[in-house]
Amino acid sequence: MMRTGFQRVARLIHHKALPRTPHLLPRLHQASAFGSSTDSLVARFCPEKTDLKDYALPNASWSPDMLSLYQEFLEKTKSGRWIKLPSFKSNREHIQGFKLPSGLVAASDKQDWRIFTRCIQLEGQGYEYVIFFNPSEKKSVCLFQPGPYLEGPPGFAHGGSLAAMMDETFSKTAYLAGEGLFTLSLNVRFKNLIPVGSLAVLDIQVEKIEDQKLYMSCIAQSRDKQTVYAKSSGVFLQLQLEEESSEQQ
Amino acid sequence: MMRTGFQRVARLIHHKALPRTPHLLPRLHQASAFGSSTDSLVARFCPEKTDLKDYALPNASWSPDMLSLYQEFLEKTKSGRWIKLPSFKSNREHIQGFKLPSGLVAASDKQDWRIFTRCIQLEGQGYEYVIFFNPSEKKSVCLFQPGPYLEGPPGFAHGGSLAAMMDETFSKTAYLAGEGLFTLSLNVRFKNLIPVGSLAVLDIQVEKIEDQKLYMSCIAQSRDKQTVYAKSSGVFLQLQLEEESSEQQ
Repeated sequence: MMRTGFQRVARLIHHKALPRTPHLLPRLHQASAFGSSTDSLVARFCPEKTDLKDYALPNASWSPDMLSLYQEFLEKTKSGRWIKLPSFKSNREHIQGFKLPSGLVAASDKQDWRIFTRCIQLEGQGYEYVIFFNPSEKKSVCLFQPGPYLEGPPGFAHGGSLAAMMDETFSKTAYLAGEGLFTLSLNVRFKNLIPVGSLAVLDIQVEKIEDQKLYMSCIAQSRDKQTVYAKSSGVFLQLQLEEESSEQQ
Repeated sequence: MMRTGFQRVARLIHHKALPRTPHLLPRLHQASAFGSSTDSLVARFCPEKTDLKDYALPNASWSPDMLSLYQEFLEKTKSGRWIKLPSFKSNREHIQGFKLPSGLVAASDKQDWRIFTRCIQLEGQGYEYVIFFNPSEKKSVCLFQPGPYLEGPPGFAHGGSLAAMMDETFSKTAYLAGEGLFTLSLNVRFKNLIPVGSLAVLDIQVEKIEDQKLYMSCIAQSRDKQTVYAKSSGVFLQLQLEEESSEQQ
């Protein structure tokens, strides 16, 4: 079950057997594979009307710093240059009507699925974050406030919680900027610890899209940019989701 | 508050101003700084008698694969070559009587602190894992079973959840093998997705200890080693914890 789809594609890419040979990807037609416009991807990802709970909205746990920067970016969305991304409980809700490429289907059951960065639903205890995306400049900003359930060294956020936040922000950016679907690599250089409860601002930029891969960079720092928490890079594999109805494919 | 201790040391190291100049680390005396034996570190970390709850024990959510491999490693602990590490709710409990180096003190309050990889206490829903450590060979094995709250792509573990699990296993290994205290870098190359509920086995090895840094590698794969999920490397900074009583320092 696992040895098709992403695995085969990713393996080929990893082993550099497929630098520029799209014929080895039988399910993808290079000319049309990544033809979805950012507009249509955003429309799919950010439904205007939905009953789904959006977890990327202010709550009582947000610090004044987090809240005021959120308001600043919300103001910027009015011009249309920036978009506030909704954040549902599971990626299943973000891609309703679509599914992973053929072969990438895990056993399904009636579990209570949650996207990792929304695994803790107690306000302020775990991940508090909101992502803003700028389609024309292919960049994102994530406002991240780690709670006490994300602890590593006493009083500070776990390095892994920041790495996961970076991966998640890369993931959403990669998808909207060019159908980036799976992380191929994530490299993080940690500079300073983030005190629990304080605000880290993650600036993500798509650096290039080449050979079916999106290359991104991230810097996480304090709002005043005086303290760099970490820098990272991420590479994502472009793959198209399939429509749910195309079961026979 | 944040611009001392780890930050200064890490910054100097990052900027390569301090390749081999221990005099720039006034609080550390190179000759004695990392003199704690692995035995004494293990004794500190794994109290023989404690009332603290150990989360690294089998529960009803563990798969037969996870359970049988756990039993195999538990058997190996009898020879003394392998040690099963306990896993408490917070790192605060692992380092009782000690604190982070001077200057690295975050605002403290009466919050419900949890180490990130124990943030979800519902059995089977989040992180299920146990780490075994081999002191003489400076290596570890982590048995990791991601639950449905760790989802990324529908049905599969979030890449960030695996990155965090790697960081956490590196962290415990680095501390016990040589007082590695803070992640300086974490590089992950993802190969295949981990289906939620299945077992990933992480093999960690300390590759070298040099210039106050521990270099480690990790491979995460299925139990039968037929599927590699990811490979990673991690670099940790060696720093000594301070005794709680030495407030005046």
